[in-house]
Order: sequence, then structure tokens, then C-alpha cells
Amino acid sequence: RINGSRLWDTLMEMAQKGPGLRGGCNRQTLTDADKEGRDLFKRWCEESGMTVGVDSMGNMFARLEGTNPDLDPVMMGSHLDTQPTGGKYDGVLGVLAGLEVVRSIRDQGIRTRRPIVVVNWTNEEGTRFAPAMLSSGVFAGVHTQDWAYAREDAEGKKFGEELARIGYAGDEPVGNRKMHAMFELHIEQGPILEAEGKDIGVVTHGQGLNWLQVTLTGQEAHTGSTPMPMRRNAGLGAARITALVHEIAMSHQPDAVGAVGHCDYYPNSRNIVPGKVVFTIDFRSPSFDTQADMERRLREGAAKIAEELELGLEIEQVGHFDPVTFDETCVTAVRRAAEQLGYSHRNIISGAGHDACWINKVAPTAMVMCPCVDGLSHNEDEEISREWAAAGADVLLHAVLETAEV
Amino acid sequence: RINGSRLWDTLMEMAQKGPGLRGGCNRQTLTDADKEGRDLFKRWCEESGMTVGVDSMGNMFARLEGTNPDLDPVMMGSHLDTQPTGGKYDGVLGVLAGLEVVRSIRDQGIRTRRPIVVVNWTNEEGTRFAPAMLSSGVFAGVHTQDWAYAREDAEGKKFGEELARIGYAGDEPVGNRKMHAMFELHIEQGPILEAEGKDIGVVTHGQGLNWLQVTLTGQEAHTGSTPMPMRRNAGLGAARITALVHEIAMSHQPDAVGAVGHCDYYPNSRNIVPGKVVFTIDFRSPSFDTQADMERRLREGAAKIAEELELGLEIEQVGHFDPVTFDETCVTAVRRAAEQLGYSHRNIISGAGHDACWINKVAPTAMVMCPCVDGLSHNEDEEISREWAAAGADVLLHAVLETAEV
Ligand SMILES: NC(=O)NCCC(=O)O
Ligand SMILES: NC(=O)NCCC(=O)O
Repeated sequence: RINGSRLWDTLMEMAQKGPGLRGGCNRQTLTDADKEGRDLFKRWCEESGMTVGVDSMGNMFARLEGTNPDLDPVMMGSHLDTQPTGGKYDGVLGVLAGLEVVRSIRDQGIRTRRPIVVVNWTNEEGTRFAPAMLSSGVFAGVHTQDWAYAREDAEGKKFGEELARIGYAGDEPVGNRKMHAMFELHIEQGPILEAEGKDIGVVTHGQGLNWLQVTLTGQEAHTGSTPMPMRRNAGLGAARITALVHEIAMSHQPDAVGAVGHCDYYPNSRNIVPGKVVFTIDFRSPSFDTQADMERRLREGAAKIAEELELGLEIEQVGHFDPVTFDETCVTAVRRAAEQLGYSHRNIISGAGHDACWINKVAPTAMVMCPCVDGLSHNEDEEISREWAAAGADVLLHAVLETAEV
Repeated sequence: RINGSRLWDTLMEMAQKGPGLRGGCNRQTLTDADKEGRDLFKRWCEESGMTVGVDSMGNMFARLEGTNPDLDPVMMGSHLDTQPTGGKYDGVLGVLAGLEVVRSIRDQGIRTRRPIVVVNWTNEEGTRFAPAMLSSGVFAGVHTQDWAYAREDAEGKKFGEELARIGYAGDEPVGNRKMHAMFELHIEQGPILEAEGKDIGVVTHGQGLNWLQVTLTGQEAHTGSTPMPMRRNAGLGAARITALVHEIAMSHQPDAVGAVGHCDYYPNSRNIVPGKVVFTIDFRSPSFDTQADMERRLREGAAKIAEELELGLEIEQVGHFDPVTFDETCVTAVRRAAEQLGYSHRNIISGAGHDACWINKVAPTAMVMCPCVDGLSHNEDEEISREWAAAGADVLLHAVLETAEV
């Protein structure tokens, strides 16, 4: 078993880097706070006898040598970046539980044949720079590094420049690290495990994601003196499409979700009919067909709304991944670990995207989930219990030890 | 007649202060650009033999002495501040035409019994600090100065502090200046005069305005892993209310308008269900009853939407004025001036709010309108012809001369 109180202390100490305004965290990717969090993680890893390498996407790899260094390592990890109003566990738990696994292994004098690597993937959240899971995506060959470097935040700052600015554009070529398997522990971010009183979610699948960024162009005009029939109101178009997104997702219950989380009015003045609105639709489903149907209906409906309101319409896909099936051997290792440890468990489909979803394309991968209070995440009030965190880390420990060959 | 090309040159020179990105202006109130525009206006006024006083709201009064200085002056003016993406004429024409009237009077050696004052009212646009027509409102006793000083912009900067920062918190107590009458020349900002080929609009009324700032509070949650029935999506509520605003305004055609020009999502992240949305509704009508009906239906409908989506709802009135009837004597002076000069004209109701609407509460007031291309305003492409500007200024000259007693 891992040391639950040491794990909890590292979580609380990390939460001090980029503290949020209401008890959570604001450690957005490639900010100064992210750099502080990375520096702390690096120091902890080195103090635990690991060597830390950084690749050209800022992904950090902390390696504990195996008795046979020529074998491909077993990796475990997640991400240290957070939402602007994020919690203390989303991503962070998976990285620091990896650290705790290594600390426990060393405490107990365990040696594995395969090396063990704890990973921190850069920009998982995708808020500052879309898409989410950007750097695990480049690692897995889904995106090119050049494309990733050119991603811009809302202020027009480029990913590549911000990465260099905080000193984490590493010298390892991205994607070069071989691995035998990867495991990611993550909080569920949904309500199922807590509601059913299960300690552990054995993640068999991940649902697909589709981010459609919509730009509606109308004409700026005076809200008082412009007759209604002359208006080309981009805000009204955005409102109708936002309602349509909800309607489409509701028609596929319970196998789909849909929402607009990001929306910018231009010029955003009380007495100007909006001339432009840019917003992003987030559609998800575990079914390929449902994903395709939602996009088709959205495009049709949006085109009709734009035509009726005489608006220009552009739709750009700014994030996308297909539904994922995790590796059967790794999934079985997770389930067996939960059983051996006596934790209650159930199979679960991940509602959120995770770095594991991309890494699964290039190496056998699985995920462990632990419950979170009220299923709440992407909220500063995100909460888990020490026991849940410890159980998740225990399962991670056992799955990794089995796979890394004790 | 005034000097049309001199008027045009001053308009073009003023447009250099806070130039917009696409040919218009961004001279928002109490910015450095506003200060530059004010400094230029002050210099011009002093070069034309006027003395410039500034009151504690930053309203600027440039006075040309009359042959009987004890008589109350006739004022004319408008505002030099613009929208963030505004035109070169909205407000500016009314101030600089006032300056041109004084220059022409002096050129032609005309003396009036009453003094003549050219006014620049502070923060007419209301974009940076709501409400619109803030400082003419304080002058007219509609708002207190303390309340106005405490208005905040989107960054939390206070009106009073920004006024002091640009050096235009004057030493005259606001509202102390007496006046015999006020005239405001303004572009129509709507399509009627151009469509009917009329040179001049004789403004008999102004429609009322109602700005309702709505705050919807839901719960930030993960857009992927939060089941649809658990969501409290403030963005969806804002979308439905935005559609309702349009529906309500359309039901009162052609006697009402309605739109949402300002809308902020929080935390505005692609993968967070919006926990809060703040937006402002702009409802207008020349009818008291229609204004009341629109607000009633909006409040009812919004409450229902908020209840259904389990959202908190707050509605704050951040701007309001009743429909206005301008002073009969002043309106007649405008109509007579247009007739004497041989300009085609028609009566018109102002669709926009103007400083004249507030000043009308404390002094006899009227407005002159000139056409603008395609009725377009609050847009950098706002355009007028030199001839339209000159005709408007000519009418202003004659109405003011008659009222100030040559
Ligand atoms: N786990 C998580 O919150 N990932 C962010 C990407 C997503 O929106 O699913
Ligand atoms: N004239 C003008 O654009 N005034 C701004 C206040 C309003 O929105 O009517």
C-alpha cells in the first residue's frame, strides 16, 4: 500500500502553486504558476532518486531505473495544469500518485525489472490553448509540433513562445520515448462511483469529443435607432445555436452531452448590435454514430439560422478525438489490482478526455478512476476524500508493479 | 451659412484622436484618447475667443460672450466620446458644429444679446461606464454625482478616479450653469432621412430606453463528464433569454426594438459548463406602455427560464429614460431654420438616447438631425456627406441665432 497521508500532503503543497480565488487552483498551462508547479515536481522527483527529462513539448518524464534498463519502461502520469477555476485533483492526482508509487516502492525496497516513469503531460486542459491533451497528442503523432507551437491563447500569445518563456522547451525530441504500457489515475469528474459507493472505476472506454468553434458575422449597428428588420444580429444567432446544441444533445440521452462553455461577443457594448460572436461547442458521446449525427444536425441547423438572420457562418473544428477502447491487458491489470486489494469497483466509460486516450494509440494504456464529491469537477469546489485518493494510488501501484515485473 | 469645409476639416482632425482600427474611432470616455480630444477642443475654443470652464463631471462649457452677459446663454453641443468601434460623427458632429457656428458668427461680425455656449458632455456612450448620458444626467439632477463617480468599467476602474486621472475633474459644481435653451445636432443613426431624401430631421420626440443587466448563476461543471440532468448551465439560460428579448421586441413592431449587445461568460472555458453569465438587455420604445409591457414579459419569461434550468437570476436596471417630448418653441425654431434655408425636412423621433433628452428636463431643448449612410452607426463604417453635415450646422446656426437674439 502507498502512504496515503504523504500523498495528501503533496497534493496540498502543489495546490499552493497557482492557488484559486475560492479554494481551488488556477495553474493554467505555461503560466508562471505552471512553471512553479513543474519546478516543485522536478525537485520532488530528483529527491526520490529519479532523473527528469523534458521533451520539446514540455512533457516531463521522471525515470526510476529498473533492474533491466534495456526494457521499455512502464509509465504512469497525467497533468499538472488546471482550469482557470479548477480543482486541486483533476490531473494532479494522477501525477502525484505516480510520485507516491515510486516513493513507496523505494521505501519498501522493491525493484522492478522494467524502469518506471512518472509523466506530466503539457496542456491537458485546453482552455488557454485549444485543443485539450495537446502535448500527449503530439507525442502520439496526432498533431505536428509545428502546429502545436502555433496555437494561440486569447491574447494572441503562441504556445511555443510561452513554453520557451517558462524554460520548459526541453531538448528531447517529442515522441522518442518508448514505453511498454501507460497507466493514468484520474478522478471520475462525474457522479457514478460516488452514487454507487464504489472505490474504483476500471475505465474500459473513453467517449469521443468534438469541439466546433463557430464564428458568426453580422453587422455592428445602433441598438436604439436601427429598425429590427435591418439588423444582422450575431448574438441572436449565437443564442439560437446554443439552444440547438442543447436540444441535439438531449435527443441522444443518456449517450451524449453538449454545451457551449466559451462565448465572446464583439464589440461587446450594451448599445451595439453584436457584429461578431465567436463560441465553441463541446459535443461528446461514446458512440461514433452519435458524434457524427450531432455534428451533421448542428451544421444543418446553424446554416439555417445563419441564413435566416443574414449572418456569415464559419465552423472550425478546434478539438476532436474518437471514442477510445483501452487495452484489454492493462484494463485487466487494473481490475485485478482492485480485486486483490479488496476495493469495490465497476467498469466505467470516461466522460472526459485524458492524455491516456492519445497514448493508447501508441502503447497499451488503461486508466484507474476514483470518485469525486457530487461528481463536481472543473470547479474550485472539486473535492475527494483521502481514502479515495489512497485507494486509487494503491490500485495504480499494484497494476504498475505487475506490469513492470517485480 | 457656416463654413462647410472648415467644419469637415475639424471633424477629420478630431478623428485622429483615438483612431479606430478600421477607419472609425475608439475614443472611449476618460481614456487617454478622450483627454487628447478634449485638449484639442479646448485649444480650438480658446483660439476662437471663448472661455472654457469644466464642471466636476468633466462637462466642458466654452462660452462666447453676448452683448448682455447677464442673460442666460443658449447652449449647443453633444459629446466627443465614442464607442470602442465607433464612427467619426456620432456626438462629435454636434460639438464641432457648435464650434463652427461660433467661428462663423465671429467671421461675420454677428453679435447676439445672449451668450452662446458650446458643450461637450462626458460619457454619453455608456459603454465603458453604464449608463449612457451619464454626465448630462447628473447635470439634470437625474443621478447624484457620488453615484456617478462610483460607476465601474469592466476592469473595476471607477468613473471618478478615471476623470481625475485625465485631469478633467473640473472645479465648477455640476448643474450650476443656467441656460436659456439647448440645441443638439446629431446624425440620425437610422435610415429614415436618407431613404426619404430629406436634408434635416426636426426631432420632436425621443424614444425611451431600458437597460436590464441580467446575472444568471448556475454551477461550473465539466462539459464531458457531467450528465445532462445534473447541469445548471447559465449559458443556456442566457441564450434562451436572448431569444426571448428578440421575440418580445418583434411582437411590438414597428414601435419597439430590443437586443443583447453585451454578454460575458464565466469562466469562459471550452470545457466548463458556464457557472455565470452577465449580459445587458436594451429595450426601447417611444411608448411608455410598450416599455412597461416589454419589461414585464421579460421578467416573467426570465424567471420561468431560470426556474426550469435551476439558475439564480438577478436583474438590475443599469440605464433608463422615459420617452421624451422636446420643447415646442425650440422645435419650432429648428423647423423654421430649415425652412428659411430651403432644406427639405420632416419630423422625426430619435431612436437613440441623447444628452438633449436629459437637458430637456431642466431647460427648453430641441435636436436637429442629419442623415447618415445606410442608417449605420455604432460602427466604424459610419458615414455622412459634407453637404449633410453643413446643412445640419446651418440649421443649428439659425436656430441658435434666433434663440440667442441677434
Ligand atoms: N480530464 C479533463 O478534464 N480533461 C480536459 C479535457 C476535456 O475537456 O475532457
Ligand atoms: N446617440 C447615441 O448613440 N447615444 C448612446 C446612447 C444610446 O445607446 O442611445
